[in-house]
Amino acid sequence: MKEIASYAMGQWVAPDAAARSVDCAITGAPFARIGNGTLDTKAMLIHAREVGGPALRAMNFHERAKMVKALAMALGEHKQALYDLSFHTGATQKDHMIDIDGGIGTMFVFASKGRRELPEAHVYVDGELEQLSRHRSFMGQHICTPLRGVGVHINAFNFPVWGMLEKLAPTLLAGVPAIVKPASSTAYVTELAVKIMLDSGLLPEGALQLISGGVGDLFDGLGPQDVVSFTGSAQTALMLRSHPSIAQNSTRFIAEQDSLNASVLGPDAAEGSEEFDLFIKEVMREMTAKAGQKCTAIRRIMVPDAQVQAVIKAISAKLDALTIGDPREESTRMGALVSASQKRDVLAMVDTLATESKIVWRDEARVPTTGAFVSPVLLHCESPDTATEVHATEAFGPVSTVMGYRDLAHAAALVAKGEGSLVTSLITADPAIATAFVAEAAPWNGRIYINNRHSMKESTGHGSPLPHMVHGGPGRAGGGEEMGGIRGVMHYMQRTAIQGSPDMLTAIGQKWVPGADQITGPAHPFTRRFSELLLGETLHTASRTITLEDIETFAHFTGDTFYAHMDEAAAARNPFFPGRVAHGYLLLSFAAGLFVEPNEGPVLANTGLDSLRFMKPVVAGDAIKVALTVKRKTTRNEEYGEVRWHVSLTNQDDELCATYELLTMNAL
Amino acid sequence: MKEIASYAMGQWVAPDAAARSVDCAITGAPFARIGNGTLDTKAMLIHAREVGGPALRAMNFHERAKMVKALAMALGEHKQALYDLSFHTGATQKDHMIDIDGGIGTMFVFASKGRRELPEAHVYVDGELEQLSRHRSFMGQHICTPLRGVGVHINAFNFPVWGMLEKLAPTLLAGVPAIVKPASSTAYVTELAVKIMLDSGLLPEGALQLISGGVGDLFDGLGPQDVVSFTGSAQTALMLRSHPSIAQNSTRFIAEQDSLNASVLGPDAAEGSEEFDLFIKEVMREMTAKAGQKCTAIRRIMVPDAQVQAVIKAISAKLDALTIGDPREESTRMGALVSASQKRDVLAMVDTLATESKIVWRDEARVPTTGAFVSPVLLHCESPDTATEVHATEAFGPVSTVMGYRDLAHAAALVAKGEGSLVTSLITADPAIATAFVAEAAPWNGRIYINNRHSMKESTGHGSPLPHMVHGGPGRAGGGEEMGGIRGVMHYMQRTAIQGSPDMLTAIGQKWVPGADQITGPAHPFTRRFSELLLGETLHTASRTITLEDIETFAHFTGDTFYAHMDEAAAARNPFFPGRVAHGYLLLSFAAGLFVEPNEGPVLANTGLDSLRFMKPVVAGDAIKVALTVKRKTTRNEEYGEVRWHVSLTNQDDELCATYELLTMNAL
Repeated sequence: MKEIASYAMGQWVAPDAAARSVDCAITGAPFARIGNGTLDTKAMLIHAREVGGPALRAMNFHERAKMVKALAMALGEHKQALYDLSFHTGATQKDHMIDIDGGIGTMFVFASKGRRELPEAHVYVDGELEQLSRHRSFMGQHICTPLRGVGVHINAFNFPVWGMLEKLAPTLLAGVPAIVKPASSTAYVTELAVKIMLDSGLLPEGALQLISGGVGDLFDGLGPQDVVSFTGSAQTALMLRSHPSIAQNSTRFIAEQDSLNASVLGPDAAEGSEEFDLFIKEVMREMTAKAGQKCTAIRRIMVPDAQVQAVIKAISAKLDALTIGDPREESTRMGALVSASQKRDVLAMVDTLATESKIVWRDEARVPTTGAFVSPVLLHCESPDTATEVHATEAFGPVSTVMGYRDLAHAAALVAKGEGSLVTSLITADPAIATAFVAEAAPWNGRIYINNRHSMKESTGHGSPLPHMVHGGPGRAGGGEEMGGIRGVMHYMQRTAIQGSPDMLTAIGQKWVPGADQITGPAHPFTRRFSELLLGETLHTASRTITLEDIETFAHFTGDTFYAHMDEAAAARNPFFPGRVAHGYLLLSFAAGLFVEPNEGPVLANTGLDSLRFMKPVVAGDAIKVALTVKRKTTRNEEYGEVRWHVSLTNQDDELCATYELLTMNAL
Repeated sequence: MKEIASYAMGQWVAPDAAARSVDCAITGAPFARIGNGTLDTKAMLIHAREVGGPALRAMNFHERAKMVKALAMALGEHKQALYDLSFHTGATQKDHMIDIDGGIGTMFVFASKGRRELPEAHVYVDGELEQLSRHRSFMGQHICTPLRGVGVHINAFNFPVWGMLEKLAPTLLAGVPAIVKPASSTAYVTELAVKIMLDSGLLPEGALQLISGGVGDLFDGLGPQDVVSFTGSAQTALMLRSHPSIAQNSTRFIAEQDSLNASVLGPDAAEGSEEFDLFIKEVMREMTAKAGQKCTAIRRIMVPDAQVQAVIKAISAKLDALTIGDPREESTRMGALVSASQKRDVLAMVDTLATESKIVWRDEARVPTTGAFVSPVLLHCESPDTATEVHATEAFGPVSTVMGYRDLAHAAALVAKGEGSLVTSLITADPAIATAFVAEAAPWNGRIYINNRHSMKESTGHGSPLPHMVHGGPGRAGGGEEMGGIRGVMHYMQRTAIQGSPDMLTAIGQKWVPGADQITGPAHPFTRRFSELLLGETLHTASRTITLEDIETFAHFTGDTFYAHMDEAAAARNPFFPGRVAHGYLLLSFAAGLFVEPNEGPVLANTGLDSLRFMKPVVAGDAIKVALTVKRKTTRNEEYGEVRWHVSLTNQDDELCATYELLTMNAL
């Protein structure tokens, strides 16, 4: 018998005597014990806040991203052990790929986004600088800093690994410690994953704790800087959300709960089309993967009225060929539900659905009688406008209902009857159909997945939440958001509007703000290594007078003989120019000529340029000069770092003619 | 007696017989009647959803922004009437500037941001394109669409105009109808502002309704697409937030409630410094503006231990000179509280605070005995580490408490004892002090305001929430966010992750996505007017071979003789280059030479360039060519529109050498 331990305040704590048993999904026999009557979960919160939080906050975003990547690698090295254990949850090897490989992949994406999209700093600068004053002596900038609390992650049974990691990666990246509470029925898999991560030695103490079993009085200890991230049933969400601590402290509560996800076969995708076949394939995959125990699974199959019979026939044919059985067998295509109680729930919900809809495919005969196996159930709802259960009852198993729609607006209206979903898919090859459908359906969905013959080879599947994209949905789906790249990290950070002088904003955001002090370095900045350059370090160049000959030469050399540069009369007719003006690219090129240090040195390459704006035309006789200021530094690898320079190009009257940001790669 | 009406389902509804009276703050005599026993507030929700929502959604963001601007202008034309009425709330002319002019100004900023930062379209594209597949046939993009519900705005009494407009502007911009429920004691001012807006004829029917009096059973009718935005006491927030509809439907609930805002005098700002004087001035303004009835007012005055007596003395001197009285008198510097009941509350809270802190300034003798006038109260808390009320009791009047701190960390710890605030200010001239303080205090604050001698001339005041910046705070402050520019609009929109082929994302987002169809237009796109250009319309240029002579010519002409372009051996030592390479600016310039149409035509100017990335070096002998594609179109005024072009520069092997986005201004 496996003992599922908790990890609290630096110690593994075995289940207590009153622990209850967890059954194997395949055999139905007791397999593990879980329970933690002796655990002081409120003290765990304090441990996380006082020990884990400070340690994580001492790291910058990039250090945390590297840690997340290393954790993913550590888990990857022990994948087989996780697979072996996971079979007992009823999952097949293909299901493991979703949960275990999917979870590890999610961590890798967050690690990579953390390095690319978050600064090498402790403070995240959110959005653009806001000009709050005419002379720019008082400006605004939003920053995000790690909450001083704990990420309390309450996870569902269906993805014991992915479910933990998709919450853990953004939490750690944010610099916030986590307490993970997996659902009991598959907690043994989560426990192993936690053990692998802790054993790796990569995590500072207090950054990750595990509650196997009930949460005790943890919620009484929640405060204003904590975040509860919940995945599970609407009923449990409602109970937790209503805990007095939550409302009294404005504790953030992110819920991902029930969802009657739909898949819509486009009106253009009749039987015989590639889209029709693709639709059947996606529906079939969503019904059977994880035996339908996916919060994103397709519960409502919406097809043009004329296609209803063809769709039922095609899905039924696929179901006829389905092998259900021991997930450890290679031939098995669908495993078991997680537990006998889950099976009872699903069967009861099928009965509820069948009061309104007709069961058109079911075959209990082919289902093993041990453990928690069930037959897929395909239903047909003939009156989806008046039926209510089909839009409200989520049978969390291989159960789905076909319904016909009259036209696209009707399909969108049926989708909305779900009162908020995680995902709706649309199979169509027509962008106009997709656009019209999305306009109606988007407010009701956290994600809309569109697929057709052009994208099917590379498409990622209706049911797969991706770390890049938001996962969550409005209304019935809980109103929460997870992942979505860096957005998901922000759920664990506080956004603060900072107002002050440019010098203050520069120091706080570690990003130079125009108007802040410009430092003169000891030498040309291109001769200084990445590590030597200071924020605000500025090169002021000599000036260069632009001649008409320069403009002519540039025009003929480059081929850019646009009339505003060549024809005085025509240029004067242009509402933006006083007469012939210098090319914008001439200015950029001459600016480089002014600021570049030609000899070999630490600057290796100009890799890009952002936010160029031309503010005032330059005419022959004007003299331009450049100020080049270090705005932001980001180490990219062991050898190079990226320097973002603020460039301002002014004329002889110190009027701003152009500003831009220049990127260079510099030797460390 | 003024009758405060409601506006429901297209009709003004007068107070019913059971209406209660509202007193004038100056005289204490009954001034108006409010009550709406006959109002069907649930039907108002339906009216907003079915009539107002569709009308607003038929407009694009820019049309709504123009409407918001026009509404602001209409209000501006009737400012005097609003001022005249507002005196009865106890407010001075200076207070009116905050409420009425501040509210109108907020609408103007939202209108302007709507035009500049939101697309001329119905769908907002949020964040970057996400590459979900290797060959980019399946991509991700987030969009935001208007919620299909209602913005229910429950406002506090202190800002009857600004409080409505700061919520209304982002709601209307989002395309969502609003139901406004002002606090009864100042609802007559809100009613007039609503009347002005409705009479302007600018709003589609159903876009704005007004509940003067109680909300009835409105909350029972809330659904998953509605948003409640609440400003008021923590107690009322808790009650509303706990309504079953909210949790069951995951209805968004934005709260801005109690807040024990602090102002910290920096350790560098001793008596005699400009910062010290500035600090006293800010504290004084926050204590007395609106008679302290501001959610952002300074309740806790934190100063270095050594400065406590000097600060008390300085504030007391200012208070000694304060004229309290009829707000209509020009000499009056502080008016009345809003009502007798509010006065009772404030006095009771002062008693509570005085159990721990000592009253160091109070002068009831100078306070008019009519109406709801009170004396300012300055307290001194000697033991801020052990005192609890001073960090928890918000006396919503001219009441503030001085406390000493030992060092900056102590000050930040005291700030945190407020358990979440709307704003904390820090008066310091030292960026290092600001940075250290912000790192500790930011997670506890929605806004941090830093001021000193350099920014004071243009600073906007500790207590002024600005439309550009987020207003709201964690924990005790309610955990909500309002405004913050376009962020505030997003509270009324649903973010949806869209996955699909580039063609689908282009059609849905009305923004061309690389990989989507490229259309060949009937002529060179520079000869086509803004209105004629189509998304995806593409010019494929001829190619041009780059010679070593080109590189040399360009180098000597521009002065950019960086070794990577000039010295084969040195360039080859550079880790990014195979040998001598063409200048990036040469490529940009030649690209323009390839795609520009030289004659006068609809393209008026190249105004900027974004997101340039060099992907592959170009060496002598390579032949470059350009594809220029219409990515996004935005009308800027009656004559011009901005075209954002996607530019890709490829070599003879069709390898991507550079991509960027080009901005041009084109005649409509």
